[in-house]
Amino acid sequence: MVCRPRIPPVPASADAQRAIDDKTKPPGSLGDLELWAVRLAGIQDTLTPAIERARVIVFGADHGVAAENVSAYPPQVTGEMMRNFARGGAAINVLARANRIEVEVIDVGVDADLTSVAGLVHAKVRRGSRNFLHEPAMTETELDAALAVGRDAARRAAHDDVRAIGLGEMGIGNTTAAAALLSALTGAPPADTVGRGTGVDDDRLAHKRTVVTHALATHHDALQNGARAALRALGGLELAAIAGAALEAPRLGIAVVADGFISTVATLAALRIDPSIAPALFFAHRSAESGHAVALDAIGARPMLNLNLRLGEGTGAALAIPLLRSAAAILAEMATFSSASVSRA
Amino acid sequence: MVCRPRIPPVPASADAQRAIDDKTKPPGSLGDLELWAVRLAGIQDTLTPAIERARVIVFGADHGVAAENVSAYPPQVTGEMMRNFARGGAAINVLARANRIEVEVIDVGVDADLTSVAGLVHAKVRRGSRNFLHEPAMTETELDAALAVGRDAARRAAHDDVRAIGLGEMGIGNTTAAAALLSALTGAPPADTVGRGTGVDDDRLAHKRTVVTHALATHHDALQNGARAALRALGGLELAAIAGAALEAPRLGIAVVADGFISTVATLAALRIDPSIAPALFFAHRSAESGHAVALDAIGARPMLNLNLRLGEGTGAALAIPLLRSAAAILAEMATFSSASVSRA
Repeated sequence: MVCRPRIPPVPASADAQRAIDDKTKPPGSLGDLELWAVRLAGIQDTLTPAIERARVIVFGADHGVAAENVSAYPPQVTGEMMRNFARGGAAINVLARANRIEVEVIDVGVDADLTSVAGLVHAKVRRGSRNFLHEPAMTETELDAALAVGRDAARRAAHDDVRAIGLGEMGIGNTTAAAALLSALTGAPPADTVGRGTGVDDDRLAHKRTVVTHALATHHDALQNGARAALRALGGLELAAIAGAALEAPRLGIAVVADGFISTVATLAALRIDPSIAPALFFAHRSAESGHAVALDAIGARPMLNLNLRLGEGTGAALAIPLLRSAAAILAEMATFSSASVSRA
Repeated sequence: MVCRPRIPPVPASADAQRAIDDKTKPPGSLGDLELWAVRLAGIQDTLTPAIERARVIVFGADHGVAAENVSAYPPQVTGEMMRNFARGGAAINVLARANRIEVEVIDVGVDADLTSVAGLVHAKVRRGSRNFLHEPAMTETELDAALAVGRDAARRAAHDDVRAIGLGEMGIGNTTAAAALLSALTGAPPADTVGRGTGVDDDRLAHKRTVVTHALATHHDALQNGARAALRALGGLELAAIAGAALEAPRLGIAVVADGFISTVATLAALRIDPSIAPALFFAHRSAESGHAVALDAIGARPMLNLNLRLGEGTGAALAIPLLRSAAAILAEMATFSSASVSRA
């Protein structure tokens, strides 16, 4: 095991606050933007932070538990949507283009042969995670490999001077995995963590809750061993990859923007594994998926947007990144009272 | 008086909804973005709406009532900030640049000689509105002229193929004018409409409420004559110009994004003058200024963002416009289930 360097100490946030207060505006009048600007100064260790390049990373994987009939969509949709991402036709492609954000799509475990699809990063660990109703979703080796896929994505971003990454996902069945993992991490009952996902009806919602309840019982012993063990037992390959990216990006000076329910639960797992990443984490939005609020509350996060999104793919992150880019620009570019000859209060 | 054409009938919004539902995502999963996309289709009368060019228009003016010591900042700050806008150093300049939005700054009534300042639109009606504690803020002629400044700005935007305008303002004293106007338009007491503006202390807040209460009594008779009369009695030149822009832009197929407290109150006045503009109006955010919630509630508007902003200048609009641009792109650019060969639920 390599000795991981810690994330850089949060620097001069008092200096950043002073710099913000000298800008030509009443103190505090840019609200959340000022808080984010100070945090970005810490993450980038500079009083002139900037987010020129930003990237949403979409991790795709299938789920053994999808065999339990927990989704409104058939499992082959994961692969079909990966092809849609590669062609640039999905919501995340459109929103990223509209907001000057790059998209990287990674096959970390789709149950389809996508090797011939150009425009994807091919990093398949396995064709879908195992069905956690019967066995752990991943072996130790598979979990390590999926975490490494996320870590590598963060390193590629750093190499490309990307300063903010949004963490998105695609995987039929993954709200079931995320709900189970969230219950395991927080103790919240499946009634609170299991929601309608892509839109299941009442019967299937009840069934989905039963599946999660059984899975929590099956893995009860393993779940006493912390977040990594929970991620292995109940997660999915894309959830593990998201956790890997969230663990790695902060120490590279990259802001991490969690997207919706699945992304937030995976980020929560990462935070439990290494709490020191907290200052670099942003939470894009509060989604309409019911368990998302449970996850955000467990983290103590106030989401940046509240737009009733429930699509995933990183779509909320693509809408939130311009706010971070704006916050950085305020600190880096605004005039000061003295430089602009504006009278103070 | 010219016969004003009505805004185009909201077209095919059922068609737009159908088009959205055929996109590769669970129905409704893009939340507010879908509602906005359908509205933009109506405003632009197309199933492929787009917001390439967008512009925040900052209307600057001074206020006679500033003589009553109602602001934390001295009145000369209005002119100083106009120079700051012209140099590109203010918050609105920075946020617009970060979000690919143009800025147009209009002197509609600043109490300073700005004729030598390049980069402003010089359309001064008067050096500041009159002190409405003693007389109407504007004469009929001045009100007409200020409304026309806003209308002309909307027409310039249309000429330049701008498809969304944000309505911003700068004017020391203008939260007092907006609070008085809001009380006049809604009947809400000054205790609810008068807030701290740029940051007055408790004593000055109480004084500001007294000033508004007296002004409402002084103009009691005039205020029986509708929104236009209220705007003339208690508004300001920049508030009237904002109302003029909000009245004109919708019939030119331009979406109107109101910014914070002052901009929202001016837009409310416009809406009372011509309710048919409603479908083209968007409300960028819920600001920290206490009266803003009163104004938004009077309109029945759900703001797009909630970031504790209270700066004005159009800063909230600059942050909200990317969301509208994104919504338009979803409708215009996303693949459909059939075009992308993705299975349905």
